[in-house]
Amino acid sequence: MSSNIGNALNISVFGQSHGKAIGVTIDGLPAGEHIDVNELQAFLDRRRPGTSELTTARNETDCPDFLAGVTEDEDGNLTTCGFPLAAVIKNKDQHSSDYSELLTKPRPSHADYTAFLKYGEARDMRGGGHFSGRLTAPLCVAGGICLQMLERRGILIGAHLERVGEVQDEPFPLYPDKALFEDIRSRNPATIDPSASLKMIDEITNAKFDNDSVGGIVECAVTGFPAGVGGPLFDGIESELAKALFGIPAVKGVEFGNGFTCAELRGSQNNDAFIAEDGTVKTETNRSGGIQGGISNGMPLLFRVAVKPTPSIAKTQKTVDLETMEETELSIHGRHDPCIAVRAVPVVEAVAAIALTDLLLSENKL
Amino acid sequence: MSSNIGNALNISVFGQSHGKAIGVTIDGLPAGEHIDVNELQAFLDRRRPGTSELTTARNETDCPDFLAGVTEDEDGNLTTCGFPLAAVIKNKDQHSSDYSELLTKPRPSHADYTAFLKYGEARDMRGGGHFSGRLTAPLCVAGGICLQMLERRGILIGAHLERVGEVQDEPFPLYPDKALFEDIRSRNPATIDPSASLKMIDEITNAKFDNDSVGGIVECAVTGFPAGVGGPLFDGIESELAKALFGIPAVKGVEFGNGFTCAELRGSQNNDAFIAEDGTVKTETNRSGGIQGGISNGMPLLFRVAVKPTPSIAKTQKTVDLETMEETELSIHGRHDPCIAVRAVPVVEAVAAIALTDLLLSENKL
Amino acid sequence: MSSNIGNALNISVFGQSHGKAIGVTIDGLPAGEHIDVNELQAFLDRRRPGTSELTTARNETDCPDFLAGVTEDEDGNLTTCGFPLAAVIKNKDQHSSDYSELLTKPRPSHADYTAFLKYGEARDMRGGGHFSGRLTAPLCVAGGICLQMLERRGILIGAHLERVGEVQDEPFPLYPDKALFEDIRSRNPATIDPSASLKMIDEITNAKFDNDSVGGIVECAVTGFPAGVGGPLFDGIESELAKALFGIPAVKGVEFGNGFTCAELRGSQNNDAFIAEDGTVKTETNRSGGIQGGISNGMPLLFRVAVKPTPSIAKTQKTVDLETMEETELSIHGRHDPCIAVRAVPVVEAVAAIALTDLLLSENKL
Amino acid sequence: MSSNIGNALNISVFGQSHGKAIGVTIDGLPAGEHIDVNELQAFLDRRRPGTSELTTARNETDCPDFLAGVTEDEDGNLTTCGFPLAAVIKNKDQHSSDYSELLTKPRPSHADYTAFLKYGEARDMRGGGHFSGRLTAPLCVAGGICLQMLERRGILIGAHLERVGEVQDEPFPLYPDKALFEDIRSRNPATIDPSASLKMIDEITNAKFDNDSVGGIVECAVTGFPAGVGGPLFDGIESELAKALFGIPAVKGVEFGNGFTCAELRGSQNNDAFIAEDGTVKTETNRSGGIQGGISNGMPLLFRVAVKPTPSIAKTQKTVDLETMEETELSIHGRHDPCIAVRAVPVVEAVAAIALTDLLLSENKL
Repeated sequence: MSSNIGNALNISVFGQSHGKAIGVTIDGLPAGEHIDVNELQAFLDRRRPGTSELTTARNETDCPDFLAGVTEDEDGNLTTCGFPLAAVIKNKDQHSSDYSELLTKPRPSHADYTAFLKYGEARDMRGGGHFSGRLTAPLCVAGGICLQMLERRGILIGAHLERVGEVQDEPFPLYPDKALFEDIRSRNPATIDPSASLKMIDEITNAKFDNDSVGGIVECAVTGFPAGVGGPLFDGIESELAKALFGIPAVKGVEFGNGFTCAELRGSQNNDAFIAEDGTVKTETNRSGGIQGGISNGMPLLFRVAVKPTPSIAKTQKTVDLETMEETELSIHGRHDPCIAVRAVPVVEAVAAIALTDLLLSENKL
Repeated sequence: MSSNIGNALNISVFGQSHGKAIGVTIDGLPAGEHIDVNELQAFLDRRRPGTSELTTARNETDCPDFLAGVTEDEDGNLTTCGFPLAAVIKNKDQHSSDYSELLTKPRPSHADYTAFLKYGEARDMRGGGHFSGRLTAPLCVAGGICLQMLERRGILIGAHLERVGEVQDEPFPLYPDKALFEDIRSRNPATIDPSASLKMIDEITNAKFDNDSVGGIVECAVTGFPAGVGGPLFDGIESELAKALFGIPAVKGVEFGNGFTCAELRGSQNNDAFIAEDGTVKTETNRSGGIQGGISNGMPLLFRVAVKPTPSIAKTQKTVDLETMEETELSIHGRHDPCIAVRAVPVVEAVAAIALTDLLLSENKL
Repeated sequence: MSSNIGNALNISVFGQSHGKAIGVTIDGLPAGEHIDVNELQAFLDRRRPGTSELTTARNETDCPDFLAGVTEDEDGNLTTCGFPLAAVIKNKDQHSSDYSELLTKPRPSHADYTAFLKYGEARDMRGGGHFSGRLTAPLCVAGGICLQMLERRGILIGAHLERVGEVQDEPFPLYPDKALFEDIRSRNPATIDPSASLKMIDEITNAKFDNDSVGGIVECAVTGFPAGVGGPLFDGIESELAKALFGIPAVKGVEFGNGFTCAELRGSQNNDAFIAEDGTVKTETNRSGGIQGGISNGMPLLFRVAVKPTPSIAKTQKTVDLETMEETELSIHGRHDPCIAVRAVPVVEAVAAIALTDLLLSENKL
Repeated sequence: MSSNIGNALNISVFGQSHGKAIGVTIDGLPAGEHIDVNELQAFLDRRRPGTSELTTARNETDCPDFLAGVTEDEDGNLTTCGFPLAAVIKNKDQHSSDYSELLTKPRPSHADYTAFLKYGEARDMRGGGHFSGRLTAPLCVAGGICLQMLERRGILIGAHLERVGEVQDEPFPLYPDKALFEDIRSRNPATIDPSASLKMIDEITNAKFDNDSVGGIVECAVTGFPAGVGGPLFDGIESELAKALFGIPAVKGVEFGNGFTCAELRGSQNNDAFIAEDGTVKTETNRSGGIQGGISNGMPLLFRVAVKPTPSIAKTQKTVDLETMEETELSIHGRHDPCIAVRAVPVVEAVAAIALTDLLLSENKL
């Protein structure tokens, strides 16, 4: 199967970019969970296209219609009833013509060719089909609901765009807080340092001007996450989060705490010394990203996600015509984000929320 | 659950470092698969401790006893019979006394504290319990069997120690081959460039001399892997491999192809142009690591795994006494690898073999 | 989770009887599978209410809207594209008022009370909520698609109403064929012996006249099913089919071949002697229901499903008021089938088709 | 996969009848659970062969060796440490020669032929291989541990042999208790009515005298099971229990409460009226077997399991020689129970304990 995640939760994403609708089903949500639809919509708007120069012009409101799993009060707010939840987002504003050429001329580093290999003639790759970044909308519906459930338990998830091309944002402090997360969200791109956000806009617009795109890194922190969750070997938090995060289109790397940097370090430089603070055990540093032996240690969870540059660029590229098997050239028009990492920030929060809610429900710690 | 992986295969690892035995069960292996026990033992010996200056002095032969799932011919070679396979490795040469102190004084960046949080008084953490690197032995039994199955289908998996501290090995060429893999295995540490191996020995012995340890990066390539395997979203090859690789103790980062580097690149620098070669579509470069849209494109799979420095070091470190909640100091004796990345090389091959065999079986492409 | 089934397939049913819509997502369908929508609608109509005296007056056309996973040709026929399929059926013609009283006065042998225990105040039990027989409509959408896939491979599934109250239909012959299945479907209730169908109508109308309901048994046969599918212990065909069949509301028993009768028999009376026929091995009788050791033996699969009488009856019954905890009486109005077994016939075919398609896909035998 | 069950638990059974050993791994057991080894051995002895005239002469003590997942105190009692548990039982007293002929001449209604179809030449069917009733020993190790966990929470599981051939035992009373369960276990066969046990011995010895075997029905009750456990559709208690129970070799039918009888009844005869007793809601009768809408209602769970006559009989039977494809005759020697239903009683208890413990752990109700 291709679009399913979860153990205690069973989340199934469906839809093609240019099909009738996209959506998600969530089985396993506890009954009686309140869903603030305005807060959810505000979250969805953070990943919505057409909001700025930096993103594709494709403009969709992405307003989910809840078909099942909830009851509605007079204010239109929703409460889960314990049955499987289903939410649907209708597709509109599609320019399928933009993609006609791509069936025979696969875009470099895009799923066009591998989809042809796997699904053959029957595939529906208009607009990227089921591989489209558009599928992150239903992921954000599921993740937005999980974020509200987690926040009610004092667990906050916040991400920032830590790097774009040459531009580097500040790292998270040892203990990020709600105020910082909200401050970050007030900016687009979402950075800790306001000047980094401005520099990133330059970096991205320059790439766009050059008919090119640019990659980025999203750093994410989770505060208030209970200690003692996870386990050794394949059900460690790293395994669960990584499986989920690599499900986000364009993600090519995931690291926790010091991550790849630890290869250059000595144990004495990479270990987190234990200290006693207000009656509990904490670590002086958080190079482990809050996880030791696959289990949370009570410190904030900290991880970084590498997002590749949008493969769809206007610049002329080499490809192969699948009918003639002749090498040929391709210049992609259509509307594409010059830096998908910008909109990946809320998606990383959403997917982390899904994976961690699932983990907490599995261990009955929610 | 904590120690189980696979969909078509169901692989369950069990055992504590200082328990009676460690082992693995593998359900879902096809019937009639030949297991060359000498080849398997040779593979297991690559991760075995006590083989050099660089590894712990704990010396165990790690010879698995096959209790079920196979029939044996006169030469002692094994053939799977289609029923669940069970293999057991007896524990010996244990110095439990080495660990007595650690129950109340958790080792920084080790699982001692998180195991206490999760399992409480009942935990068995002698020698690291189920978190011990020793559990990678049964993983290598399962992985070694998968490697033989894959090789019979022309799929080869090879890894090298790409970095230790300041020392950098050469990267893999665009098309690694069997000769290269065998050359790499002839060295310890396993590098492409012989001089890198010697420099790493210095780097590691220096760390050991300083009562310290050092981290590393393992790079792994898979050749002959069929195109069109995997899928969008959460069942992409990246998701499956990452979930498995983060199951290896001490792994803190996983990246595919360009990985984190792509954040600094433009699309035109990160895309893989398609070319036509001997009648098939290939890519001019392999920055995608052989995976686009979560699906293999026929190029070699390429990924890198960050292994943290051994957290157990003789250098004095700060910790907290869990009984008194007083801060105190700890200096770890016992026998530990100064650089676990050295022995992680075959483990990465084994775990990749498990995840890819499972994926191929799920898609009936084996 | 409560509404999910499958291994190679992941089928998720959602919806409440009186919610906006009910539906199903199917992940894992092969690409390029043709869906004949007229044939599918004809199948759905077999379980549709409001078709006769014997069923609830609630009249819904149950026409599914396919949101994802398919492409549509000019004739409106559908082809799977390999991505998750989603189908939705809008709810209409609801009389929620009929159910207001039941929130505090649970109906005997219905899920009202257990739903209150599990979901508490947040439950949505209007019309039976997610427990409603109405949820078998999306199951029949998924099952109807599977039935078409199976029939293209020469695998036919047919069921008949073998018993209602005192009325007994003929058993299946040793080798049922397509003509027999079609003849059975021409009748309502669907029986082998036309006179049995007429007697059942009497039996059911009598029960209805008495403000009561009556139970029944559905017998199902599968022909053309490949030999060698299934496995020992928990993944036997019996385990997979039973898990699925007990998912149908009101099912209280499942047996294969001789089933419970075998308790009264000697081995020599219950064994199926092997015979050689047209070059293949067959059995002289089919007391095993085509399954030995959990694996298909090439004979038709044969099983029987017990369906309890509709618990909702107009006759006055004893219950307890959940607010006052006083014993009280209840007489259920609203519109209910006097014999759900009648409409269970196509549902049993659908659910068997789902379980067997999943099994065949898991073993790459489809 | 063939030999794995559970969601919160992951139980993997391995071994062939004539292999080195059989065993089980259990992943997901909570830490700190005490295992009384004497009580466990007493339970295992209830299914052990060679204990009476009625069972095979094959005599094995079935004493499990715990390799992992537990710590041992000075009295040899065990406590789970939260890591995967592994238990192994060595095989001995095998007469493989008894089975030599069966490779080419499959035994009617046994797995010999279907195993050949599925696994081909590589299969190991000596003594029935992995299909052997012997595999119920590790199931009873896992189930025996679960039974102790459940009993500590006031949940008791007890079964009796309700029928053998023509002999019928009494049914369970509305509320069975511990005294009754213990009284039943004092008899072999385990019946409620002592005279039924004696009549069954006649029935079985007569069958044996005739070189034949006989079937039976095991009825099982679960008391103290919490209300509100389970769910609609495919995760109902019936689905979970049935999947597990059909995993027991020779089981051909499973029914809950009135089961198949309900087909002959009116709703008014099959419904369970609600009554208020000591402040809680109960039902006047238990025709639902304690389950409504797939969810427990607080009454005892009640189900019946049909066990077919041992297919291995000394009487001459028709079979087909798989090499010549000629019809031929077969008379099975070797040592076989004339009525496997006798020893199935503790196995049904064990498997029910496994499925219910898994369900309770999944819902955090243990």
